Amino acid sequence: MRIALDAMGGDHAPEAVAEGAFQAAREWPDTEIVLLGPEGTMNPLLKERVLPNFTLQGVSEWIEAGEEPVKAVRRKKNSSIVVGCRMVRECQTDAFISAGNTGALMAAGLFGTGRLKGIDRPALSPVFPTMTGKGMLVLDVGANPEARPEHLEQYALMGSIVAEKVLGYENPRVGLLNIGTEEGKGTALTKEAFGLIEGLPVHFVGNVEARDALYGVCDVLVCDGFSGNILLKNTEGVAKAIFDRLKQELTRTPFHKLAAAVLKSGLKRFAAEIDYKEHGGAPLLGLKGPVIKAHGSSDARAVYNAVRQARLFVEQGVISQISEQLKRVERG
Amino acid sequence: MRIALDAMGGDHAPEAVAEGAFQAAREWPDTEIVLLGPEGTMNPLLKERVLPNFTLQGVSEWIEAGEEPVKAVRRKKNSSIVVGCRMVRECQTDAFISAGNTGALMAAGLFGTGRLKGIDRPALSPVFPTMTGKGMLVLDVGANPEARPEHLEQYALMGSIVAEKVLGYENPRVGLLNIGTEEGKGTALTKEAFGLIEGLPVHFVGNVEARDALYGVCDVLVCDGFSGNILLKNTEGVAKAIFDRLKQELTRTPFHKLAAAVLKSGLKRFAAEIDYKEHGGAPLLGLKGPVIKAHGSSDARAVYNAVRQARLFVEQGVISQISEQLKRVERG
Repeated sequence: MRIALDAMGGDHAPEAVAEGAFQAAREWPDTEIVLLGPEGTMNPLLKERVLPNFTLQGVSEWIEAGEEPVKAVRRKKNSSIVVGCRMVRECQTDAFISAGNTGALMAAGLFGTGRLKGIDRPALSPVFPTMTGKGMLVLDVGANPEARPEHLEQYALMGSIVAEKVLGYENPRVGLLNIGTEEGKGTALTKEAFGLIEGLPVHFVGNVEARDALYGVCDVLVCDGFSGNILLKNTEGVAKAIFDRLKQELTRTPFHKLAAAVLKSGLKRFAAEIDYKEHGGAPLLGLKGPVIKAHGSSDARAVYNAVRQARLFVEQGVISQISEQLKRVERG
Repeated sequence: MRIALDAMGGDHAPEAVAEGAFQAAREWPDTEIVLLGPEGTMNPLLKERVLPNFTLQGVSEWIEAGEEPVKAVRRKKNSSIVVGCRMVRECQTDAFISAGNTGALMAAGLFGTGRLKGIDRPALSPVFPTMTGKGMLVLDVGANPEARPEHLEQYALMGSIVAEKVLGYENPRVGLLNIGTEEGKGTALTKEAFGLIEGLPVHFVGNVEARDALYGVCDVLVCDGFSGNILLKNTEGVAKAIFDRLKQELTRTPFHKLAAAVLKSGLKRFAAEIDYKEHGGAPLLGLKGPVIKAHGSSDARAVYNAVRQARLFVEQGVISQISEQLKRVERG
């Protein structure tokens, strides 16, 4: 198996990507890890990191975080993101991972890797931490802000397959993000999508409210990209805000600091549990091959976890399973 | 001033409403507090609670939490919610507060109290706690799930006035909830609303991401009712989940319990800070008079705080100020 990584993507690139990718190469000798990055920058970083299954493929350019996605993808044909997505299409790699410009990765995935037959819009699909410790696949969180009912139907189908094959859930429960649990709640979009998802060969548990989502009431949460993005960023924001305030509280006086010391290891474990970094990257589901977005603030461990997830994705043949299921639904 | 309350609305009704309303009557002798509830249920509760400015107005029926809103409002003409909203329209009370069925209150507000000229859809507008301790007015959180750009424009105008007059912010900063901060981000709705809000006499700070909202980047956050509802319920869900896990962590061993005891008062204060109950109720902005939704799980303190907010609302003449501003914008 071969997995390519964008060495220049993310807040801590290229060091964190190089280190995480190297750890992955050491862990899985059967997996060839290919870093895409400029030779001048990468060679010093790779001097100390030598393994037979760990190589660099030189690229002459890369896309910065702030660049306008579609323009950048059109102009920078030899950037790590564009090259990686093209390699997936041309079967030069089994998967591609980037922690870089999300919009550019989506555009390059769409234009360079291409959509599966039967999929109108790919969905960005991260795993959210839940209180049950199991995690929940949420799609879409922003690839397609203006979704139509049939897009949500396609997300339900793809999400169910990934939850089963990659996350290991038996008969995964699929929920529809809504503003009430009763059928008939929400907008024209959610009402119509509800009916469509009911007709799919998935375990549909109906509408799910944002309040209950973290409590593990479903394994797959389907939503339009605008709402999903609000959900994702609000979850991050609220968790960060509470931890920030907690830290203030725990260091208020020397006495508080003493008590905090006792609690430290437990709180750290807890913070790690709800940390996206432990949950790997977010696949762009609906493309012809695995393209995975790692979080922009990925450290080496997050990169390593994204590789672990990409391996599962490839091993389980997720793309061909999605493709098969789409054909079956179309015929049915 | 006169403020009417729905004695039968909310998880802890009628006891919590009776107690909260009584506390408010004691605190503000200049305010006549009128409870709307069935005499048989209320009289025993009011036996010990006697004040000249605290009265019961008997109603023969009430709307339950689970009832279908529009049907219930049509059928139960003498329910506390329908009577309260009608009293506002007929100037028999200066404001009405209910912690009951949100949908029914919205329907009764729309049909019974009526919309202000220039407002197409009222907005449910709670104050979110922020890390700065100031709070942020968010509208709409669910009265109008399928908003049009001009609705968001109207929310921006109303929100700015309430933030200034009720919350006491000077030149309040109005933000538009979006999935990116750059202009041109989001859906057709947010793009068009952006342009409309730019033309208003408010201090517009542009797009705001959910991640930053709690950090006090704006005083008023404008959004469609679907996204706003997701934001509200996700904030509640994430905060509850983290506090639940924190509690587990703090009671894991006797040693942990000891440390937790030191931190207890600080954590309690912190939990109170981010508790909606301290922030009063959510007005239904855009109606001809103040109709305020208190949280379904309101305790006596939350009811008391909702009365405090309603008084400010009336004292500041918020409704006529909104009405004036709407006329000015229409003329301009």
